[in-house]
Amino acid sequence: MSAHNVVRDFTRTDASILEGLATLGVSTVHEADQRRGALSPAIRPIQAGVRIAGSAVTVRCPAGDNLMIHAAVETCRPGDVLVVTTAAPSTHGMLGELLAVSLRARGVIGVVMDAGVRDVAELRAMGFPVWTRAVSPLGTTKANPGSVNVPVVCDGQDVAPGDAVVADDDGVVVVPRDRAAAVLEAGRARVSAEDAKRAQLATGELGVDMYDLRPLLADLGVAYLDGPSG
Amino acid sequence: MSAHNVVRDFTRTDASILEGLATLGVSTVHEADQRRGALSPAIRPIQAGVRIAGSAVTVRCPAGDNLMIHAAVETCRPGDVLVVTTAAPSTHGMLGELLAVSLRARGVIGVVMDAGVRDVAELRAMGFPVWTRAVSPLGTTKANPGSVNVPVVCDGQDVAPGDAVVADDDGVVVVPRDRAAAVLEAGRARVSAEDAKRAQLATGELGVDMYDLRPLLADLGVAYLDGPSG
Amino acid sequence: MSAHNVVRDFTRTDASILEGLATLGVSTVHEADQRRGALSPAIRPIQAGVRIAGSAVTVRCPAGDNLMIHAAVETCRPGDVLVVTTAAPSTHGMLGELLAVSLRARGVIGVVMDAGVRDVAELRAMGFPVWTRAVSPLGTTKANPGSVNVPVVCDGQDVAPGDAVVADDDGVVVVPRDRAAAVLEAGRARVSAEDAKRAQLATGELGVDMYDLRPLLADLGVAYLDGPSG
Amino acid sequence: MSAHNVVRDFTRTDASILEGLATLGVSTVHEADQRRGALSPAIRPIQAGVRIAGSAVTVRCPAGDNLMIHAAVETCRPGDVLVVTTAAPSTHGMLGELLAVSLRARGVIGVVMDAGVRDVAELRAMGFPVWTRAVSPLGTTKANPGSVNVPVVCDGQDVAPGDAVVADDDGVVVVPRDRAAAVLEAGRARVSAEDAKRAQLATGELGVDMYDLRPLLADLGVAYLDGPSG
Amino acid sequence: MSAHNVVRDFTRTDASILEGLATLGVSTVHEADQRRGALSPAIRPIQAGVRIAGSAVTVRCPAGDNLMIHAAVETCRPGDVLVVTTAAPSTHGMLGELLAVSLRARGVIGVVMDAGVRDVAELRAMGFPVWTRAVSPLGTTKANPGSVNVPVVCDGQDVAPGDAVVADDDGVVVVPRDRAAAVLEAGRARVSAEDAKRAQLATGELGVDMYDLRPLLADLGVAYLDGPSG
Amino acid sequence: MSAHNVVRDFTRTDASILEGLATLGVSTVHEADQRRGALSPAIRPIQAGVRIAGSAVTVRCPAGDNLMIHAAVETCRPGDVLVVTTAAPSTHGMLGELLAVSLRARGVIGVVMDAGVRDVAELRAMGFPVWTRAVSPLGTTKANPGSVNVPVVCDGQDVAPGDAVVADDDGVVVVPRDRAAAVLEAGRARVSAEDAKRAQLATGELGVDMYDLRPLLADLGVAYLDGPSG
Repeated sequence: MSAHNVVRDFTRTDASILEGLATLGVSTVHEADQRRGALSPAIRPIQAGVRIAGSAVTVRCPAGDNLMIHAAVETCRPGDVLVVTTAAPSTHGMLGELLAVSLRARGVIGVVMDAGVRDVAELRAMGFPVWTRAVSPLGTTKANPGSVNVPVVCDGQDVAPGDAVVADDDGVVVVPRDRAAAVLEAGRARVSAEDAKRAQLATGELGVDMYDLRPLLADLGVAYLDGPSG
Repeated sequence: MSAHNVVRDFTRTDASILEGLATLGVSTVHEADQRRGALSPAIRPIQAGVRIAGSAVTVRCPAGDNLMIHAAVETCRPGDVLVVTTAAPSTHGMLGELLAVSLRARGVIGVVMDAGVRDVAELRAMGFPVWTRAVSPLGTTKANPGSVNVPVVCDGQDVAPGDAVVADDDGVVVVPRDRAAAVLEAGRARVSAEDAKRAQLATGELGVDMYDLRPLLADLGVAYLDGPSG
Repeated sequence: MSAHNVVRDFTRTDASILEGLATLGVSTVHEADQRRGALSPAIRPIQAGVRIAGSAVTVRCPAGDNLMIHAAVETCRPGDVLVVTTAAPSTHGMLGELLAVSLRARGVIGVVMDAGVRDVAELRAMGFPVWTRAVSPLGTTKANPGSVNVPVVCDGQDVAPGDAVVADDDGVVVVPRDRAAAVLEAGRARVSAEDAKRAQLATGELGVDMYDLRPLLADLGVAYLDGPSG
Repeated sequence: MSAHNVVRDFTRTDASILEGLATLGVSTVHEADQRRGALSPAIRPIQAGVRIAGSAVTVRCPAGDNLMIHAAVETCRPGDVLVVTTAAPSTHGMLGELLAVSLRARGVIGVVMDAGVRDVAELRAMGFPVWTRAVSPLGTTKANPGSVNVPVVCDGQDVAPGDAVVADDDGVVVVPRDRAAAVLEAGRARVSAEDAKRAQLATGELGVDMYDLRPLLADLGVAYLDGPSG
Repeated sequence: MSAHNVVRDFTRTDASILEGLATLGVSTVHEADQRRGALSPAIRPIQAGVRIAGSAVTVRCPAGDNLMIHAAVETCRPGDVLVVTTAAPSTHGMLGELLAVSLRARGVIGVVMDAGVRDVAELRAMGFPVWTRAVSPLGTTKANPGSVNVPVVCDGQDVAPGDAVVADDDGVVVVPRDRAAAVLEAGRARVSAEDAKRAQLATGELGVDMYDLRPLLADLGVAYLDGPSG
Repeated sequence: MSAHNVVRDFTRTDASILEGLATLGVSTVHEADQRRGALSPAIRPIQAGVRIAGSAVTVRCPAGDNLMIHAAVETCRPGDVLVVTTAAPSTHGMLGELLAVSLRARGVIGVVMDAGVRDVAELRAMGFPVWTRAVSPLGTTKANPGSVNVPVVCDGQDVAPGDAVVADDDGVVVVPRDRAAAVLEAGRARVSAEDAKRAQLATGELGVDMYDLRPLLADLGVAYLDGPSG
């Protein structure tokens, strides 16, 4: 195997599972996968109110060069999410409007960028969602090699091609493809439980009672004091 | 006194003072309190266009554990603002939609979080305002002790339970309860003075004349040059 | 020449060139000027969807003191952009609503601030655009000298008075006045070329073909693999 | 009470307690005080191998102005540690060789600086220990008021005049004066216990056995696997 | 497989290869492995002048809890390097003198910590080398589960148990076990070539001639100008 | 003029002035030049106890490419200091032992790097001083154009070829060549004045008296209180 590869195809997460994960959202999916796979707060959405889930097409570029994003486009299919990493830290604008037009033409539903993007006004106008470390006009070269659809580390999390990528206003979470079905099931159970809890809490019932936390507080030695005006 | 306490009650800032402070906004209150009490730009609103003032309910949690937020809820009253700190730096999502529902049921009008929150799409949809260091899906445990309604340090500023917390698009400022009335008065005087100045400046009058700064500039040795095209 | 000067006048970039640059936007201008002059992602807009270009009025202040902004106002003309730097790093709120009212009365169309601003709710309501390092209520003194309309370094880029400053959702780029006409021409050529490319990419044509990148990929030793499900 | 005060005198922590705390070091003291009072890793020593404990003389300066450090000198006594904070974040060099000479002449044994220092080569040559956020040649004015020996917040921790400040290669920890004796006692007990544990561990005994952690690991569901070569 | 596992054994990198890699040092190994595997500058040595290479024992802890480091000790063998990561970002002091004594008793030659350490004076005195993100007295609990000797991501790089970890004053680089022999060979070739180059450069020969860069500079359009005093 | 130039020669600062500036050190020179020209605390020395002054040879590289450093070597003369900047932020190791050997063969006395260096153990062993933003093993390409001996911005400060660069444990300061003689004179006067002040302060005389600050403190409304134990 060469040091630089474009893998043309790979197994994707089932569309029906992705649809379910998109409904759950990032924080619920993260909980349902035992609190794994969340990118850090440094990767932020450039828009508000969008929630997506798709299979990862992974790209590994040199810092400041987006040749491999161009190479990745033809491996994309409808419903995919492009995940771009760089070999060294960088805030270059690795992707702008033109690449977004090209990705959309292939059916890509969003981008997770561990570097920078530009043309954000145009991206927002297109309704093309992006989660990124930086917004920057700094241009890139198209001159240096990297890889497409190999396992990458994005903001400290492993992402393999075909893994489920869920993104919304809370950030981004990655679920390995072989856990996605179980995570969806666990997430749905969690949502059901939360619906009941939400209704209880909305009536003024206290979490310390609903979750039965008073014995724990007592065990931990937390004392209750009346206070100056009690 | 135990190392971990929940203080049930405390003296709050008067509702009429809080109403006045909310009208003034963060920057005016900060000036009126002799430039004290402002949190840093690291604590940002997750929404735009909201301005609140309330009495602080303070919570001190271990990093990554929100048990004490649950314990704090029953000490909250209508008009309060929850102020959450952690014993070690953390960007965990310490609070999400369910806790917000519970806090709203108690009348809490907003949260200042020196860590992270999640479910921000839901929080925005609820119209529940939050100022926070981070947005993160990272979940917490509910297992470790802390304190409620004791003096805390939030982003470098002292906050005592019952202090006035004012928050808007400029950030967050904390006013000690016993200074709040004086600060309101000073702030109102400032606003009146600013109204007059704004009208003058809008006509094109210069600040250097209005504030009589030309003698100062001369004293400081600032020279005026005509420049190449003068 | 004194250490502190206010230069009353200077040669501005032609209004027709500025109008053209505003149409191009930051990322295109940055490319057209051979990828020079972009401020970093640390300088962010407080609003979305605004695109401006104007001649720089430059201000150099001590950290935490905005006397020289007041001194700068009378040197401003319609269409100018105020560029403010500080002698030491600072996130003080150097400019708020009152100064914005005064600047607008002089025809200033926006501010680039390598420090902090406050009253952002009011600035947004006024429609007065600002790009800034920080939002902070921290007030300043009006007591210490600096300079107006001398060459400054703003977030690592040289800015001379009269240089073209272009700003939008991608950030800020500075073009030296004597290059502005050539940059406009190069930018317009780039936009024309991009219009054609955008149309091609929207039909599904691949960038690797359109830019003829396949020979380069082969030369660089990038291997194509079918992958597990290929 | 004025907004700006110099408090001439205050009650210090007993010298014998300070001597004991210096022997324990920062991490042990932090543990012995129930993990309270530690400054963050942002405050670093400019030297290695020094361990001190003294009573805090507190100074609150405006950003970029060290007038109040000069005012603080005459309130210092032998064995004191100067703790300097600024009203807004700053990395100015607030203190250099000359002030260190002056402080040493008063018997001050070190400085904790929540801003910057300069002349570090000279400070090291003098053997005058400093813990600081930054090293910077940036000079300050001596023109603006602040306070001396009032309670301050230093890097997020409350420090009152007379509190015990312990500093070494691990950083800085602050112990309230009225807890110092109890902390010393708890710390000494901890050191004794650690001496015994160190001896056991040095022989190859495992912490999981010594601390009896195997039942906990089993309870937590941690599984043991032999692994590929087991 | 459970969510939390301790893998007792795994295949290590050959000792002879490790010995060779230690001679090469981090930067040479990084180059020899096609510029892969380097941790970022955020992970720094607490000592100077040390260069090690060992097989990775990997630990994944919750933030602020070091129970799994204790569990890892018995899986360590002479020559190993402990690599510790946390599930959420943290600067807690996860490891101090006592654990270092225990690790040394097992033959561990160093630690790479993607969080914090404490007792650095004692660690330096012991000559126990550590590369870490932070130094902090903040203590941890020993209460929460994680894993030992599973693949982890440390500061953005994949580390599998048994991988070669090389660390020195330049930082840390990780080489997958199955590439370690080839990397050693490539690194030795590089060192030989560099010895010859160093000798040439020391005589004043220019790199532009030795590497034949003048034609490239000409091709890239770099112009030579004599300059004002030429 | 091309976009990329190597300027072969330029006027340097006089050697006798540089010798004098090196004696003064960074903080004194910064003060003597009216507090101008200091780089930020982000640029740190990799060694302690070194103080140099030389004429700047300036290099502007693309991020992650050090071709132009190689091109710069032949323009260096004994006593020069190499100042390297990158067109986009980068922490690549732009310079290591081999380049240092080559620079030393040309008489270069140190490097200021607004990016990263590697081989720091070897650089320290050679006694070749470096001030840098980062230490990183990340290698660079030698493939992309830039400029040598043109004006650059290094960490926010303008540096022209031939300017005086002074560097020591406090950081780096740049003095324009045409101000260097005046700065030296002002610096020497400052040192003489400081010698007298140091002697006074060492005897226990107070700065508030020596600088006559008591009237200023009174004017500013600073009140003196005796305190609890006064």
